[in-house]
Amino acid sequence: MTYFPNVGKISFSGNSLKSDLSFRYYNPDEVIAGKTMKDHLRFSVAYWHTFTQDGSDPFGSGTMIRPWNHLKGMDLAKARVEAAFEFFEKLGNPYFCFHDRDIAPEGDTLRETNKNLDVIVSMIKDYMKTSHVKLLWNTANMFTNPRFVHGAASSCNADVFAYAAAQVKKALEIAKELGAENYVFWGGREGYESLLNTDMKFEQENMARFFHMAIDYAKEIGFEGQFLIEPKPKEPTKHQYDFDAATTIAFLKTYDLDKDFKLNLEANHATLAGHTFEHEIRVARIHGLLGSLDANQGDPLLGWDTDEFPTDLYATTLTMYEVLKNGGLGKGGLNFDAKPRRSSFMPDDLFYSHIAGMDSYALGLKVANRLIEDRVFDDFIEERYSSYKEGIGAEIVSDRSSYHISINRCF
Amino acid sequence: MTYFPNVGKISFSGNSLKSDLSFRYYNPDEVIAGKTMKDHLRFSVAYWHTFTQDGSDPFGSGTMIRPWNHLKGMDLAKARVEAAFEFFEKLGNPYFCFHDRDIAPEGDTLRETNKNLDVIVSMIKDYMKTSHVKLLWNTANMFTNPRFVHGAASSCNADVFAYAAAQVKKALEIAKELGAENYVFWGGREGYESLLNTDMKFEQENMARFFHMAIDYAKEIGFEGQFLIEPKPKEPTKHQYDFDAATTIAFLKTYDLDKDFKLNLEANHATLAGHTFEHEIRVARIHGLLGSLDANQGDPLLGWDTDEFPTDLYATTLTMYEVLKNGGLGKGGLNFDAKPRRSSFMPDDLFYSHIAGMDSYALGLKVANRLIEDRVFDDFIEERYSSYKEGIGAEIVSDRSSYHISINRCF
Amino acid sequence: MTYFPNVGKISFSGNSLKSDLSFRYYNPDEVIAGKTMKDHLRFSVAYWHTFTQDGSDPFGSGTMIRPWNHLKGMDLAKARVEAAFEFFEKLGNPYFCFHDRDIAPEGDTLRETNKNLDVIVSMIKDYMKTSHVKLLWNTANMFTNPRFVHGAASSCNADVFAYAAAQVKKALEIAKELGAENYVFWGGREGYESLLNTDMKFEQENMARFFHMAIDYAKEIGFEGQFLIEPKPKEPTKHQYDFDAATTIAFLKTYDLDKDFKLNLEANHATLAGHTFEHEIRVARIHGLLGSLDANQGDPLLGWDTDEFPTDLYATTLTMYEVLKNGGLGKGGLNFDAKPRRSSFMPDDLFYSHIAGMDSYALGLKVANRLIEDRVFDDFIEERYSSYKEGIGAEIVSDRSSYHISINRCF
Amino acid sequence: MTYFPNVGKISFSGNSLKSDLSFRYYNPDEVIAGKTMKDHLRFSVAYWHTFTQDGSDPFGSGTMIRPWNHLKGMDLAKARVEAAFEFFEKLGNPYFCFHDRDIAPEGDTLRETNKNLDVIVSMIKDYMKTSHVKLLWNTANMFTNPRFVHGAASSCNADVFAYAAAQVKKALEIAKELGAENYVFWGGREGYESLLNTDMKFEQENMARFFHMAIDYAKEIGFEGQFLIEPKPKEPTKHQYDFDAATTIAFLKTYDLDKDFKLNLEANHATLAGHTFEHEIRVARIHGLLGSLDANQGDPLLGWDTDEFPTDLYATTLTMYEVLKNGGLGKGGLNFDAKPRRSSFMPDDLFYSHIAGMDSYALGLKVANRLIEDRVFDDFIEERYSSYKEGIGAEIVSDRSSYHISINRCF
Repeated sequence: MTYFPNVGKISFSGNSLKSDLSFRYYNPDEVIAGKTMKDHLRFSVAYWHTFTQDGSDPFGSGTMIRPWNHLKGMDLAKARVEAAFEFFEKLGNPYFCFHDRDIAPEGDTLRETNKNLDVIVSMIKDYMKTSHVKLLWNTANMFTNPRFVHGAASSCNADVFAYAAAQVKKALEIAKELGAENYVFWGGREGYESLLNTDMKFEQENMARFFHMAIDYAKEIGFEGQFLIEPKPKEPTKHQYDFDAATTIAFLKTYDLDKDFKLNLEANHATLAGHTFEHEIRVARIHGLLGSLDANQGDPLLGWDTDEFPTDLYATTLTMYEVLKNGGLGKGGLNFDAKPRRSSFMPDDLFYSHIAGMDSYALGLKVANRLIEDRVFDDFIEERYSSYKEGIGAEIVSDRSSYHISINRCF
Repeated sequence: MTYFPNVGKISFSGNSLKSDLSFRYYNPDEVIAGKTMKDHLRFSVAYWHTFTQDGSDPFGSGTMIRPWNHLKGMDLAKARVEAAFEFFEKLGNPYFCFHDRDIAPEGDTLRETNKNLDVIVSMIKDYMKTSHVKLLWNTANMFTNPRFVHGAASSCNADVFAYAAAQVKKALEIAKELGAENYVFWGGREGYESLLNTDMKFEQENMARFFHMAIDYAKEIGFEGQFLIEPKPKEPTKHQYDFDAATTIAFLKTYDLDKDFKLNLEANHATLAGHTFEHEIRVARIHGLLGSLDANQGDPLLGWDTDEFPTDLYATTLTMYEVLKNGGLGKGGLNFDAKPRRSSFMPDDLFYSHIAGMDSYALGLKVANRLIEDRVFDDFIEERYSSYKEGIGAEIVSDRSSYHISINRCF
Repeated sequence: MTYFPNVGKISFSGNSLKSDLSFRYYNPDEVIAGKTMKDHLRFSVAYWHTFTQDGSDPFGSGTMIRPWNHLKGMDLAKARVEAAFEFFEKLGNPYFCFHDRDIAPEGDTLRETNKNLDVIVSMIKDYMKTSHVKLLWNTANMFTNPRFVHGAASSCNADVFAYAAAQVKKALEIAKELGAENYVFWGGREGYESLLNTDMKFEQENMARFFHMAIDYAKEIGFEGQFLIEPKPKEPTKHQYDFDAATTIAFLKTYDLDKDFKLNLEANHATLAGHTFEHEIRVARIHGLLGSLDANQGDPLLGWDTDEFPTDLYATTLTMYEVLKNGGLGKGGLNFDAKPRRSSFMPDDLFYSHIAGMDSYALGLKVANRLIEDRVFDDFIEERYSSYKEGIGAEIVSDRSSYHISINRCF
Repeated sequence: MTYFPNVGKISFSGNSLKSDLSFRYYNPDEVIAGKTMKDHLRFSVAYWHTFTQDGSDPFGSGTMIRPWNHLKGMDLAKARVEAAFEFFEKLGNPYFCFHDRDIAPEGDTLRETNKNLDVIVSMIKDYMKTSHVKLLWNTANMFTNPRFVHGAASSCNADVFAYAAAQVKKALEIAKELGAENYVFWGGREGYESLLNTDMKFEQENMARFFHMAIDYAKEIGFEGQFLIEPKPKEPTKHQYDFDAATTIAFLKTYDLDKDFKLNLEANHATLAGHTFEHEIRVARIHGLLGSLDANQGDPLLGWDTDEFPTDLYATTLTMYEVLKNGGLGKGGLNFDAKPRRSSFMPDDLFYSHIAGMDSYALGLKVANRLIEDRVFDDFIEERYSSYKEGIGAEIVSDRSSYHISINRCF
């Protein structure tokens, strides 16, 4: 069966754009600064937005017309895998990402849920054998089920903590099984609705315990992917513990987790926290903690996560500038945590929106690289801080200075 | 000379309020939970707002009618000291705070500036001998002078770093001289306007160097006050490095400063960062880093620091709840970093606004104490987390748990 | 059957609060300024939040435990009516409000949908005969169904406009049938996602046509309730046409609708638009267009509609101050467009939250009335503007002034 | 004397950019859609930002190095005029704008102030005779002087109203004298700090009286420029009456001013009000009230007016798209209400920043024109609303429809 019959393999056609369903800037094999675009960008498709979400919002039902809409349960899950690999094949993305609950339905018990997972994971593994696509990361959805109403690792209910641990155990096994390059934690319910009923310290300690347990179990099963935490300041909770990059770094340092974790940063989460995306990346970068990126964009005038496909070339350029300055993303990639608008409900819109995102990042990469090659900022910055190269400046950065030295220079 | 002839000593008159110029709730000697109100609240008057600011804003000139408006230079500085101690005497605040540039004018050279400071500090010291008022903290203004256009400790210009160091050296000597209980750093220009011309890592390292220099010098001169950093997310800079409590904690931990520094938190800075004040206090508290508080309030619909006197009883109650749970503020206090509105330009408005702030915090203290005595939240919280007292919960927090234990409980 | 077996009739017990399930301040028959509290406040229960919503949010499934959760379709709809009238009986609210789709399920055709409505409306009408409860307003839900993806009256699709008109026709007939005191339009999808694909003028003209059609039809069937528009700036759409009170007034005046419509203002919508609730009420009031109020509150740090029950006494006081100054709400009332938090999932929480809202408004009413009786603001305001009572001021407001007069006074 | 000795006449050098001090895109005589760029864009230099502001902000003193910094009083005012016309000559902007207080210092009396104005206006008039530069608009600064602390036309003090009227009288005479194409009102203090001490209706009526007086006086003296109101939501006041385009339209319609006034819209004011700039322009446009534009940009993460030079090509394109769709700006223009950052303190930065703004708008114009010529949006929109061309859609827009017709189509 074909799920996207109108769409063929998406190819690069450059400025002589022959079809809207082709790339104008993303040319996977084009070499930029010694590396192919494909290797620089490491694009990933997000399973949840592309194959699971239905276009519903807090005020309306789903609108998305999808060839799998008539199916249910495991049949639906299987159809989505088929569709996904057809999509990957046509789009040419090297990676994908998923939550456990995206790929398989929950059963009545955890055992049954895990059996469902096993079936689908096995199916995915088979597809991956003959596909170019790899798993950038997977994660456990510990926010949708009502049991997580008070959090997962930070829940006030110990059974929920235990359940979440069981879920992560399985997710790590899947990560190992499918060769995931990273494993992500997004604490969508790890925060509070009211500070007045919350023991923040206890909850954060439990989160730290939880992460250490995950590290231990990964070692036990030989999973060598990079652990990542994805900060977000709020939504759904009033206040989430992993507010932004700096807050998460404080947490990692406090609980001795900064050797085992890096950050998975998202553009729309950055702006919700009052930062630019490039700020968040810079913060992670100067701490050696830049892990991976969720490539999307928000609307600066809206106060919720809109998860739009990235199309702002200023933003993609500044993002790729930081990435290039970081020497690349290592095991990380650019995951499109993004969805077509609710009113773009046709299946082909999934391709149009991914193409827009990929082209925007490809062009951003090219411009960022040129900014670096032309030393547009580097020369300026070198000059700007040049007073620290000699005299009192050199003394200051040599760590030999003191107030006595300083003050003598000032009179 | 009398600067506030219409105002006598402000006293407590309770609900039988006889005069608007008296306290309805603040009764300094009233004992709450074993300590006087005065000792709980440790109110401080901010020299800059009360004796220096003139009511100007970005779109208008000063409006404040002050008995010292006709004076200039050192005469003005001296008149302000006289007025300040008359004000303290009448208001009954136990503490005050100042920046170096609030109390004495800058001269043509640092030497002359410091001579001006010496004269005024000596005058203040004399007044303090016969006054009940003590210095909660002082600080160096490293943001008003144009030389700090690119920052102070984080400036791209080494001479500015050196100048700032000299300024802090003098300020620490003043702190020692006047027996300050704390010394504060607010990095109003320590941040960036544009990330593109900024070496964030270098600038933060320089800030760390600067703070270590201050610690060393304090030891050298025997100043034993507590060092404090005051977070603010932005304004005047686009992005300030000490964005909020958590960001500052990450910084302190990264540069090995968390043993020597605590936080001076401000309500209006909290809301500008997207947090409630009580959130910021809780974050500092659970890290053992709660130092002192700038007691004001902002307008949730305005995007800049309005520095209003605190009158919201919900906020003062929640603040005092956190303070009581912290076992008090230690060397810290409640400093009114607040100013009358530009349209409240009469001298007596300074008293009205301080009385409003003090009464609001006094009532907040009483309500918070009752909430604790009645165990309104404590019992609820104890019950809420009770599942961690036994079974799987107890195992989890005993740190002996593992995924294998967890998962067995979940099937 | 009893739906809320733990709860009896909620009564006033005042400060000698005997039960959490009683009113501390809301004493329906207490007379304030010549009118009972009940008549001042005209409280209304929102059917959708109280009987329909399930606690789901964009990141999680429903959590609400409700005695009707096991039912479906018309059985569910009927059970909700029974529960609603038990709830009204116990709570003592004089009014309720609903959307068409709250009370009855959609069928496969509009005809079937309307038949479902007829059954439930008839059942509601029977209950109302023996109940004290009246219908404050009803409305048509023209935002949930996918057909409204591009708007209802402002849809780019004429069939959707027609469908919406048919839906309003039925809703007006229901309003007539049940004696609704008002009829409300909330244009949840009347706005745009992107200005670039939108003919704003055409869409607003169509909205005006739609409203004129509604006015005509109301006259035709003899419905004499007040028409109301409820402004909201955004969410779900990026930009909604009825952004705030002033924007809606501009629309009403432009399209000659200001004689037939008033405004239904909501606190949380006000803050999302950058205003206080009292500002929005004042704006409507000075234009003679204050219709009714949706009594809730938002979180000033969150950028979406949280629809919390109103508990902030500053806000309820200022709201009731404006209402008293308006001479009451006329046909309008205070509708609790508010829901318990997702984590307050027990049925009895519905009572606790309504009691909190009603008590908060009752106390707000009492304080507001006292502020007016004591002329706290009135005397101040009279004095403040007194310069317009004589001399140049009197000339100015007499409309006889000109620049020539003015300027002579200024030299 | 030469004020900008490093800078010659700025000319167009296109992509073969020979100097940073030349235009890459702005080619004044290039014809786009039948009109020169110069006539499309009608650029104006803002006197206040370019010749008056000193780089001070709420936390710091002025930083700007200007060749006129050593002067005072009328000598300063005259030097600024000389510098301004040298600047205009070199930049090639066809227009400029000023407040009365930008060009001449206030004296001790209004009479003296006006004499100062006369001297400078005469000097400007002489310069204009031999210059290509015309006056786009002037305005009266009724916000800086402390007398306007409670507003100007909306002041609670009748003498202030009268003073403001006298000021506008003079400003209109200047507008007439210098041939201004428009006259602008920005009500920087027309709003409130607290609703509780404010008679909003009275204040708005007084504003309406004030505007009618201005219209009358303009007729009396034969000034035929277009009157404009510039909306801004807040800052310096908590809430300004001319919040945004729609609010101002409601005001104009309420007080019968919509025939005599249009809107002067500013990008940064739009975003502070929660709108995009293009939204505000569209709103004005569909009401036939688009007057002129203040071309700047804000920072979406900052809550105050940053008045940055416009460099975002998305924004300049969307702005020019609306302008082209409006058939141009008529008497209006693109006024750079923008300033170099405080850290760009060199005189030449004034040229760099204007060049950046002009090039950004020139390129925006070219792209917008191409979008229109290629019918990128027009064809899409025509298709999108095509259902209103026939059948039920045609009936609806013919105004002959009724619910009876509509509903028959829906079954």
